Amino acid sequence: MNFDNVRIVLVGPLYGGNLGSVCRAMCNMGLSDLAVVTPHKNLDMNDAYKMACHSQHILENMTIHDDLLSAIKECNISVATSARRGLYRTHAVTPREIVPKLTMASDNNKIAIVFGREDNGLTNDELTMCTDILNIPTATENTSINLSQAVLICCYELFVASGEFEPQEEKSDIATMEMREFMFSLWRKTLLEIGFMHEDKADHMMYGLRRILSRDLLSEDDIKILMGIARQAEWAAGAYIADKVDSKYEK
Amino acid sequence: MNFDNVRIVLVGPLYGGNLGSVCRAMCNMGLSDLAVVTPHKNLDMNDAYKMACHSQHILENMTIHDDLLSAIKECNISVATSARRGLYRTHAVTPREIVPKLTMASDNNKIAIVFGREDNGLTNDELTMCTDILNIPTATENTSINLSQAVLICCYELFVASGEFEPQEEKSDIATMEMREFMFSLWRKTLLEIGFMHEDKADHMMYGLRRILSRDLLSEDDIKILMGIARQAEWAAGAYIADKVDSKYEK
Repeated sequence: MNFDNVRIVLVGPLYGGNLGSVCRAMCNMGLSDLAVVTPHKNLDMNDAYKMACHSQHILENMTIHDDLLSAIKECNISVATSARRGLYRTHAVTPREIVPKLTMASDNNKIAIVFGREDNGLTNDELTMCTDILNIPTATENTSINLSQAVLICCYELFVASGEFEPQEEKSDIATMEMREFMFSLWRKTLLEIGFMHEDKADHMMYGLRRILSRDLLSEDDIKILMGIARQAEWAAGAYIADKVDSKYEK
Repeated sequence: MNFDNVRIVLVGPLYGGNLGSVCRAMCNMGLSDLAVVTPHKNLDMNDAYKMACHSQHILENMTIHDDLLSAIKECNISVATSARRGLYRTHAVTPREIVPKLTMASDNNKIAIVFGREDNGLTNDELTMCTDILNIPTATENTSINLSQAVLICCYELFVASGEFEPQEEKSDIATMEMREFMFSLWRKTLLEIGFMHEDKADHMMYGLRRILSRDLLSEDDIKILMGIARQAEWAAGAYIADKVDSKYEK
């Protein structure tokens, strides 16, 4: 996916705070091309800078336009977002449905994702100018999403679909069966020695312990911690007994 | 999924605007149980009410707690969110990876999703108290997501996974092959009559038109519009010719 080919377009935004939050959301998800169509004359740029935490460069490089066509004229795909349903919107899809098409197309095409006014959304003319219509899933009781939250969801879906995110990696490898069995044999020996169980119940208790420790795969580091506990418990029990024996002889 | 069994927990929030935006995001995604641990003493509740657009009931019903355990004590699953990576977080997963487990578990278990302070996140003690750790995918250049945006992504992923969202439905059924072919035969006749093409090129042009009109499935309403255009063009061309003929006779 080519993130440089995705433009976020805000039509008639009213509030600087939302504009700044949009910049931050875009930046979080790897986007930077912002176009604004006829921002409200009272839009507070101080609020915008305050909310555009670490993404002021997007605010500084945004372009301002007189109408929607001017903001999207060189784009090949334009996606309108709408919270309303019905008229002119019956073919709307969800962000998750459309992102595979957008990420593929972004390699060779410019894409605009268009968001309407906080109070009134997009006009029918603006909506029908676009090649696609998006409807963000919400509970039916409250379908009105904050502007920057709507932008975030679309950018997030694109970012996830891009495959750019590198998931966390465990530093430690998953333990081998040999390591696991050695650890369990140590625990068995220790639990017998400290008197937690007797030989006749040992299998039963060990099955329980195996169940607890098999809910997810254990790493080599996990096994080392568990072996350390078993060894130390065995040592401490031995030292305690030796100590008691010593005390007896001291009498 | 049982939405009533999912609690959002904010630890030490600083800003009322974020608190209010969290309520709105929760409400958008069908959640309503909010717990707040040690909110900052200067947190502005007026800002919170202003941003909690149509979700003030969540703000009014939130519970306040002295520590994290008090906020999650009766929960069965607690999911900590963290923007940082590494230490104590190497087994973190993404929201999309964990939501199938959470939606299933919510039928019989109480789930807490825990978010840290705007400036410092969760402490290691708070993080490791939780049963799971979440890492929200972001671009590596700017991993710091606004608190309410982080809440939104988690709630949105849960809501989408719940299957509660009813996608838009086309009012009109997809047209049958018989309707499509009848429509194309009308267009063929009209395009010949108005002189757009001659019989020898007709197949070639009709293949082009079929390609344009087959990018996606056409509904019965689509077919009716297309048939109407063809019929009207034929009528208008006929009337024009008749008019010219009439004029000639009038001379």
